[in-house]
Amino acid sequence: MMPVKVTFLGTAAGIPTPERGLPAVLLDFDGEHLLLDCGEGTQRTMLQLGFGLCRRMRIFITHLHGDHVFGMPGMIQTMNLLNRAHPLEVYGPPGLKDFLERSTFSMMSEPVFPIKVHEVQQGMVLSCKGYKVEAAWADHAVPNLAYRFEFGGSAGRFRPSKAEALGIPEGPLRSELKDGRSVQLPNGSVVNPADVLSEPVSGIAVVYTGDTRRCKGVLELAKEADLLIHEATFGSDLVDYAAQQGHSTAADAAEAAKDAHVKKLIMTHISARYSDSGTLLREAKAIFADADVATDLAHYTLKS
Amino acid sequence: MMPVKVTFLGTAAGIPTPERGLPAVLLDFDGEHLLLDCGEGTQRTMLQLGFGLCRRMRIFITHLHGDHVFGMPGMIQTMNLLNRAHPLEVYGPPGLKDFLERSTFSMMSEPVFPIKVHEVQQGMVLSCKGYKVEAAWADHAVPNLAYRFEFGGSAGRFRPSKAEALGIPEGPLRSELKDGRSVQLPNGSVVNPADVLSEPVSGIAVVYTGDTRRCKGVLELAKEADLLIHEATFGSDLVDYAAQQGHSTAADAAEAAKDAHVKKLIMTHISARYSDSGTLLREAKAIFADADVATDLAHYTLKS
Repeated sequence: MMPVKVTFLGTAAGIPTPERGLPAVLLDFDGEHLLLDCGEGTQRTMLQLGFGLCRRMRIFITHLHGDHVFGMPGMIQTMNLLNRAHPLEVYGPPGLKDFLERSTFSMMSEPVFPIKVHEVQQGMVLSCKGYKVEAAWADHAVPNLAYRFEFGGSAGRFRPSKAEALGIPEGPLRSELKDGRSVQLPNGSVVNPADVLSEPVSGIAVVYTGDTRRCKGVLELAKEADLLIHEATFGSDLVDYAAQQGHSTAADAAEAAKDAHVKKLIMTHISARYSDSGTLLREAKAIFADADVATDLAHYTLKS
Repeated sequence: MMPVKVTFLGTAAGIPTPERGLPAVLLDFDGEHLLLDCGEGTQRTMLQLGFGLCRRMRIFITHLHGDHVFGMPGMIQTMNLLNRAHPLEVYGPPGLKDFLERSTFSMMSEPVFPIKVHEVQQGMVLSCKGYKVEAAWADHAVPNLAYRFEFGGSAGRFRPSKAEALGIPEGPLRSELKDGRSVQLPNGSVVNPADVLSEPVSGIAVVYTGDTRRCKGVLELAKEADLLIHEATFGSDLVDYAAQQGHSTAADAAEAAKDAHVKKLIMTHISARYSDSGTLLREAKAIFADADVATDLAHYTLKS
């Protein structure tokens, strides 16, 4: 399958710094841009990196705090100036539609190409050719959705010749096996899905949290993911403040990665007070070894 | 008098480029920030350059196209997070109040410090200790104000000893002279203001256009200014398109500088198509010698 390229466009928390822009992560898969949050300045960083704004694109917004959404009006204006023709699909929590209407009211920024806004909730958000997206409520000061992206991957394909050889009659028993459930044949023998299906193809799963305390919703969403992108606004010096503000520490992010048995953790949404993120990284690595702190423009390529 | 420091924060037209951010110019005078337009990304550039967001500050908006205003909501959110206490004063054309209300409606960005919005028209906008600001209608697709900032400067002071020596009686004749008008004495002799006033102190005048065709309003506003910051979106290759879109070419900007007898011209709002601005500079210099094309982060110090 095609690889997934993950690029951190902005890795700051609410206040940008010279090194960290406001939050945005780009997943690049099979010629389509999936943009996770859209902080102020995102359009310029995309243009700097050569990610065109007229390509197929979906935006997934975690929540409606300004630092996660204020890049959208300007990006839409630029898309207008570039004569974007492709529709733009935007997903996010309730209130997204109202935000977009208010903020693009200004002259020249009302979209002149089709823009489809999907206000979504916990559950399956999207299933299309090549990938599917699921959301879960995280735990922040305002409604915040975490997203799981599953690229490629498929259950094993049904092999009629194998079913024939095992004497499985056409009909409901075969359907059960195709759906991944074991069945008992009339002669009493048990057939498992693996007996009649080809090897399943594993995909690539990426989970992105937006802002959140460590919480059960994210833990379940992130189970066995290849990559968990978890906010880590603070270090152990501000445990209480993190909880009070609805944020995670580096240790919280690492605990989530460990409990969800993910392969890799990348922390982002780093408070401006940590000009050196070394402490955050050490605190996370003490709990979960394969941890990184994201830096702006860093990119990772995920292959299945 | 204190010098005026002019810093170009963003010099692009509607679409940012890797080299040029969206429009904003900062005048730094006597510890106060005067921000001219506030394109997306302005807050980060200010922080990068060490211009604090909690200082005394006034914002002057030329017009309500997104590329000139979309930096404001995020800047206000950051000011909230930094616990700004100083009021923020924002000046601009009618519609500014509505834009700010709509765009800061999002959670966390509604200002928690005093914000005073002044919707202004052509004429005197502001006169305060140290400087005064005048506006004139420029000529763009939507209402666009050009601003003239006059820093320091004063008429000559009245010298009673000189008046005494010339035999000018106390009363209305002296008032006329103080106000800069010549008078005739009872004995028939004429006295000019320069005979009884000290040398006037010249100030520093800076004019900023926002988006505009070359027009009479800007010409009159810019008369004898020390610095004219004029948009020059296009070159001579796009004369007709510039006129149609309500923009200037480099030659238009230079003609304005020449006709207004300014000391220096700096062109900004450069279309993304000119990755090399050399042509624009040559076209301007052929008409007005002391011309520059602004680059991001360039700064100039003006002294009287």
